[in-house]
Amino acid sequence: MFNNALIQQFRDIVGAENVFDSKADRICYSYDATKQSFLPDLVVRPGSTADVSAVMKLASERNIPVYPRGAGSGLTGGAVPLFGGIALDMVRMNRIIEIDADNLTATVEPGLVVGEFQKKVEEMGLFYPPDPASNEFSTIGGNVAECAGGLRCLKYGVTRDYVLGLEVVLSNGDVINLGVRTLKSVTGYDMVRLFVGSEGTLGVFTKIILRLIPLPERLKTCNAFFADTMDAARAIADIIRNRVVPRTFEFMDRKTIECVERYKNVNISEGKAAAFLLIEVDGIEASVEVEMKKIVDICTKNGAYKTQVAKDEKERELLWSLRKAVSPALYQISPGGKINEDVCVPRSKIPDMLSRVADIAARHQVTIVSFGHAGDGNIHMNVLVDFDKPEELKRGEEAIEEVFKATIELGGTLSGEHGIGNTKAKFLHLECGEEEIELMREVKELFDPKGILNPGKIFDPSKQRVLSSLKEIKEKVPQYDER
Amino acid sequence: MFNNALIQQFRDIVGAENVFDSKADRICYSYDATKQSFLPDLVVRPGSTADVSAVMKLASERNIPVYPRGAGSGLTGGAVPLFGGIALDMVRMNRIIEIDADNLTATVEPGLVVGEFQKKVEEMGLFYPPDPASNEFSTIGGNVAECAGGLRCLKYGVTRDYVLGLEVVLSNGDVINLGVRTLKSVTGYDMVRLFVGSEGTLGVFTKIILRLIPLPERLKTCNAFFADTMDAARAIADIIRNRVVPRTFEFMDRKTIECVERYKNVNISEGKAAAFLLIEVDGIEASVEVEMKKIVDICTKNGAYKTQVAKDEKERELLWSLRKAVSPALYQISPGGKINEDVCVPRSKIPDMLSRVADIAARHQVTIVSFGHAGDGNIHMNVLVDFDKPEELKRGEEAIEEVFKATIELGGTLSGEHGIGNTKAKFLHLECGEEEIELMREVKELFDPKGILNPGKIFDPSKQRVLSSLKEIKEKVPQYDER
Repeated sequence: MFNNALIQQFRDIVGAENVFDSKADRICYSYDATKQSFLPDLVVRPGSTADVSAVMKLASERNIPVYPRGAGSGLTGGAVPLFGGIALDMVRMNRIIEIDADNLTATVEPGLVVGEFQKKVEEMGLFYPPDPASNEFSTIGGNVAECAGGLRCLKYGVTRDYVLGLEVVLSNGDVINLGVRTLKSVTGYDMVRLFVGSEGTLGVFTKIILRLIPLPERLKTCNAFFADTMDAARAIADIIRNRVVPRTFEFMDRKTIECVERYKNVNISEGKAAAFLLIEVDGIEASVEVEMKKIVDICTKNGAYKTQVAKDEKERELLWSLRKAVSPALYQISPGGKINEDVCVPRSKIPDMLSRVADIAARHQVTIVSFGHAGDGNIHMNVLVDFDKPEELKRGEEAIEEVFKATIELGGTLSGEHGIGNTKAKFLHLECGEEEIELMREVKELFDPKGILNPGKIFDPSKQRVLSSLKEIKEKVPQYDER
Repeated sequence: MFNNALIQQFRDIVGAENVFDSKADRICYSYDATKQSFLPDLVVRPGSTADVSAVMKLASERNIPVYPRGAGSGLTGGAVPLFGGIALDMVRMNRIIEIDADNLTATVEPGLVVGEFQKKVEEMGLFYPPDPASNEFSTIGGNVAECAGGLRCLKYGVTRDYVLGLEVVLSNGDVINLGVRTLKSVTGYDMVRLFVGSEGTLGVFTKIILRLIPLPERLKTCNAFFADTMDAARAIADIIRNRVVPRTFEFMDRKTIECVERYKNVNISEGKAAAFLLIEVDGIEASVEVEMKKIVDICTKNGAYKTQVAKDEKERELLWSLRKAVSPALYQISPGGKINEDVCVPRSKIPDMLSRVADIAARHQVTIVSFGHAGDGNIHMNVLVDFDKPEELKRGEEAIEEVFKATIELGGTLSGEHGIGNTKAKFLHLECGEEEIELMREVKELFDPKGILNPGKIFDPSKQRVLSSLKEIKEKVPQYDER
């Protein structure tokens, strides 16, 4: 950890009450939603852009790694302080600065919880569609850093489609403003979207200008059970071919359905479902009725043996309850842990992907449950393994590597919405060519020449040029006492 | 122009029939839709990615500027060969490589005409929404380079929202692949959108993967005439507040209406319109009927003295005919030319902008007509001046500079969809800070260290570092004979 003189300098910037150096406090910031733990040397909680700027300036002068952090709910290690340094906790900066209903924009601070923001704009008849499962606790800053997706992307797109502008503190403490407050702009390069999904490696967001849309008037929800996965896949294709774009198009495989039914002690699927779809349309009253009828007809025509349409909000919640129980059900069935990945393949390749996964699971003797967002081909593959059993964990990791390779072979991408972080960094080369990765590294070095911003993320740490200099820093810089 | 040995090298790459060095041929490639003319030294028409790669490799070795070119329909000089060198005509590479209806994607070459592509996908029940007025002749490559917008952006977004992946030839001839075939992906930095809107300065597109959506089933179109601009502005705000998002929301001011009516020799506005709106909704039958009724009610309630709803395709064309006559009407009234800008302000600021423009026009004694895309605040301001009358042109340019300053003061952006090119390069600093521009320049240098790709665009040429080296090239490199 840092020596007192250095800690005092950070206290002078953000106030003593916003700097934590006790081990107990630092442990709280060593985690995220992955099963990793790396202790920061110091926790700093800035309250303003000026605070962030001064912290970054000092960190840059002293070559201290800085790990920006929202709620710490990331699933690829985006916020874990891999090489110590500062955990930069952004949750104090959580204001809604402005909601401009006339122009359908909002300006917010990065520490704002997504769900709180959504609730606020929905009360005003407005809508912020990106909706990761973590929305009740994850922050807008984290969502922008990881380009969060969620359940509504087929119709509404992902976080990058809703970020119009950013105020960013660069690694040297400089404050820059990117983007606009309008839907259209071609004034210089699109630097905004370069920062969206950059996983905290290029700069620290201090203000975010978001695009809003009018809140759809009505929702209509149904589910459908299929005894054959291929029937479900055909139904999905048929719905879209019939020009219906559902807002939600959730999918669960047989293993997921079994887990959930066991957890909830119900038998809604009548024991024969190979695939479950949860489909939701939105729009005006007249259109949701017509579209829902089409959807149910198409599911039935394609072999769904059971469909249910929610008649009211209570029934809607009931239909959602199976989907929402997935996460707790998996923790119950696999208390020792799960490797949670979020590969994405072209929609028509979902059946191929699932059959490959079944084969991979069998060969490596692990259980893999698959569920996710069928509309955009984004499948959450959970390998149920006990993290305390090294041999089992190893088999799980081998299976995941094969899942990644299959994903790329099928024209897919390693991560739909969780990012690369440090957990997938060693697989980046499966998807991106050497020169493409080199160009990304050069972009990184352009914005963060000392490599102090979230080092060890996106790029394979074992190949990261900055690593050696970080090691040197630790050896040379006096503020680094032994930890 | 180049000496014969050098010209032969380019002939060896793309074939003699695809290299033009006569003055007559080169003059054809010296223009775009601005009134500028800069003669290229050579015109080269590659037919494949390998061709483009070899051309760039040679150009890079010899320090020759390369100007990628689609249809040459750009409005800010994006394709004009400012410093000579090669006009790289991409129109031979115009294939649709694949339309994947199941996954709603298409892979195309950059020289494909947008309108042809739209027609093709619409025959298959699919939809590519970006729709610049130039769609009958402009190319997809040019559209991606300028992040083209058009009439449907409020509901459907701009070109960047439809580009999933790119094959790009870098300035040194290397071929890279960026992006994915899925809606979601957070694998490394978003390099795709860095290239969208980069105006040919970072690389040459050779393949473009586009996202499609299902074609909306029905269209419903109306127009509305207002005697007071503020009433029209209130109607626009009210429609969106009532959660209706029209696909098209076109606007014309009094001067534009007068021009068009004189050109078509009609009096549809009954001589009292200060503002004209053309509004179109799309979706399923049930929803377009309900939404159109809402729109007409809101327009009437807000003081529209005349509204017309198209009952069929013929009537729809009639309603559109006024809007479509704008361009020819302006050329008729101002045969000497017009300065055509496309500033964008937050929607609620349109009335403020129009009143500032009226004031600016009066002070500089020029006629400015304003029309455009009211839904996204993108106003096309045309200053009618005779380019052959230097004093008049000067007043027009002074007026435009004030228009840009007013735009920025109202929270807007210099260009909604035309780009910066060379014509607006000297104004970039009005919108972007010094450090932001410096970062963009560094990005440019990272991808194009020799500055040979479309030099003189986006960044103020008088401040462009690369310029001095280009001058040096011309002095030192033997292939440059006197032109």
